[in-house]
Amino acid sequence: VSDLFLRACRRQAVERPPVWIMRQAGRYLPAYRALRERVDFLTLCKTPELAAEVTALPVATLGVDAAILFADILLPLEAMGARLIFAPGDGPTFPEPVRGAADRWRLRRPDVESSLGYVFAAVGEARRTLAGRVPLIGFAGAPWTLAAYLVEGGVSRQFAHLLAWSYSDPGGLRDLLDAIAEVTLDYLLGQVAAGAQALQIFDTWGGLLDAPRFRDLALPSLQRVLEGAAGEAPLIYFGQGNAHLLPVLRELPVAVLGVDWRQPLNEVRRAVGSGLVLQGNLDPAALLAPPPEIARHTAALLAAGAGGGHIANLGHGILPSTPVEHARAFVRAVQDAAPRPGA
Amino acid sequence: VSDLFLRACRRQAVERPPVWIMRQAGRYLPAYRALRERVDFLTLCKTPELAAEVTALPVATLGVDAAILFADILLPLEAMGARLIFAPGDGPTFPEPVRGAADRWRLRRPDVESSLGYVFAAVGEARRTLAGRVPLIGFAGAPWTLAAYLVEGGVSRQFAHLLAWSYSDPGGLRDLLDAIAEVTLDYLLGQVAAGAQALQIFDTWGGLLDAPRFRDLALPSLQRVLEGAAGEAPLIYFGQGNAHLLPVLRELPVAVLGVDWRQPLNEVRRAVGSGLVLQGNLDPAALLAPPPEIARHTAALLAAGAGGGHIANLGHGILPSTPVEHARAFVRAVQDAAPRPGA
Repeated sequence: VSDLFLRACRRQAVERPPVWIMRQAGRYLPAYRALRERVDFLTLCKTPELAAEVTALPVATLGVDAAILFADILLPLEAMGARLIFAPGDGPTFPEPVRGAADRWRLRRPDVESSLGYVFAAVGEARRTLAGRVPLIGFAGAPWTLAAYLVEGGVSRQFAHLLAWSYSDPGGLRDLLDAIAEVTLDYLLGQVAAGAQALQIFDTWGGLLDAPRFRDLALPSLQRVLEGAAGEAPLIYFGQGNAHLLPVLRELPVAVLGVDWRQPLNEVRRAVGSGLVLQGNLDPAALLAPPPEIARHTAALLAAGAGGGHIANLGHGILPSTPVEHARAFVRAVQDAAPRPGA
Repeated sequence: VSDLFLRACRRQAVERPPVWIMRQAGRYLPAYRALRERVDFLTLCKTPELAAEVTALPVATLGVDAAILFADILLPLEAMGARLIFAPGDGPTFPEPVRGAADRWRLRRPDVESSLGYVFAAVGEARRTLAGRVPLIGFAGAPWTLAAYLVEGGVSRQFAHLLAWSYSDPGGLRDLLDAIAEVTLDYLLGQVAAGAQALQIFDTWGGLLDAPRFRDLALPSLQRVLEGAAGEAPLIYFGQGNAHLLPVLRELPVAVLGVDWRQPLNEVRRAVGSGLVLQGNLDPAALLAPPPEIARHTAALLAAGAGGGHIANLGHGILPSTPVEHARAFVRAVQDAAPRPGA
């Protein structure tokens, strides 16, 4: 049903939970890997026809109820002037990290139409390819998470530079977060203007902070993004390792809260109330089990989510080693589940 | 006061919280770095005189109230027959990881006296060096955490091999965990026999699991270790990113629960009850702030811990970039705090 996902986001009546998969347009798909043999990652992101093709792949292959734009959360930082490298085999790196207020001169506020227009073109192209079969989700990183990569120069185990800055010059770090928030909001509004029908904010590293420091450092710039985009499309916030932040997250102006695989949906619902639709949260590794096990785990997931609005998904990105048939088993198990009483 | 730490572990009256620092005998110390210029990491672990010297360094340099043995949690896996490499600049690696029941033949149950006797010798030597000034803490990794490294072949971002095994052949993985538990228990009892006066169990990766899977997979082997060692010395359990596991952790047969930096001690105390002494949990990055800030953060930490038994520490290992003077400021801020009312 083409609008099932959007109805679920808006807490309207649904006959069953919609289902999609984080990183569903990724490396576990043979067609994606074949394409990447020919085209490097950044070129793929920057070629709207190819990005749209990849965006639509899991709709055809898995039958998911929503598509999510193929892009990378770090692209707006590149548009701000940070040199970004995706070396094969490695994660993304910023060879000139921003480690203090003095490094800020290297960043600018870009005109998103000219510097990120390729993303908006991919959104439009993906909407045409999807032809109304399922809605298209746009996305961006939360300012704190983007700053984490930019300050460390890539992924990190301890984020020592970021955390050092947060203690030695919190005002300077807040300035950086505000600057990233402005660009992120422009970027999200541009995606909506191009046709994105919902927006997910990925806050991978928000859980590094305890609740008071999250409120103090990460929340203001996040709020600015969320409040600016809230009237435009349903918003989804996803973090991980953030069970300790639920009292803060329940106050976010979003429609949907993405939950990582470690927190039982029924307990999260108790903590955040019934005003938020929950999205998630099967352990991605459960898709490495035999399909009958996957069906069993999915049934348990649907039972845990049944007390309120629920969008079925994994609790983190799908693992590259997942067999496509197993991903399909998860999607089918959601779609074939008996209708919920009273739904 | 020489037995302050042990009295705090036993919930006896203390005039102030004792303080020590995870990884206090490590890279942030110039004397340690100077030694490592001459000796590689494994040689240092395996030379009792040097390991004892490093163990005692932070007692002299910082004035901490306890010493912790200088060693590595992976040493017992090497003793079980897994080839272990510490390449300079990299983390530890197992070039032949154990990825399924068929790989188990490469592991053996070692006689810990002959294969890990160098650790016990370091314990004895450290006790002589410390000469009763402060107690000596021994330690080991939790079986689940040791298995995580052994299965992945080192540190990992997603632990896909470990989690895949846990879903595809949980019985086989449990056998591995049981085997590791047996050796770990022998290893801990050997440390106590050699003079260790308390034991800390590091469960760095326990938080990867949700609570039901932690109970099912990680807990049985952990319990076996804890129950076997419980009568011998006060036990401390430390994990990280495990706020979602508190309902399980409160049942562990340990004296002290180490808390990571993200969970406020007063909230953890509410969740686990007053039967457990809490250890921690200043954000290690807070030691990168100027010393007056460190004093302020430490005062807040002591206030949060004041509702019950508390051993002051960081909420994770000290960062290598920490100035020694800042670590000293933390220790002093605890030791100079006003005595607690009624303590």
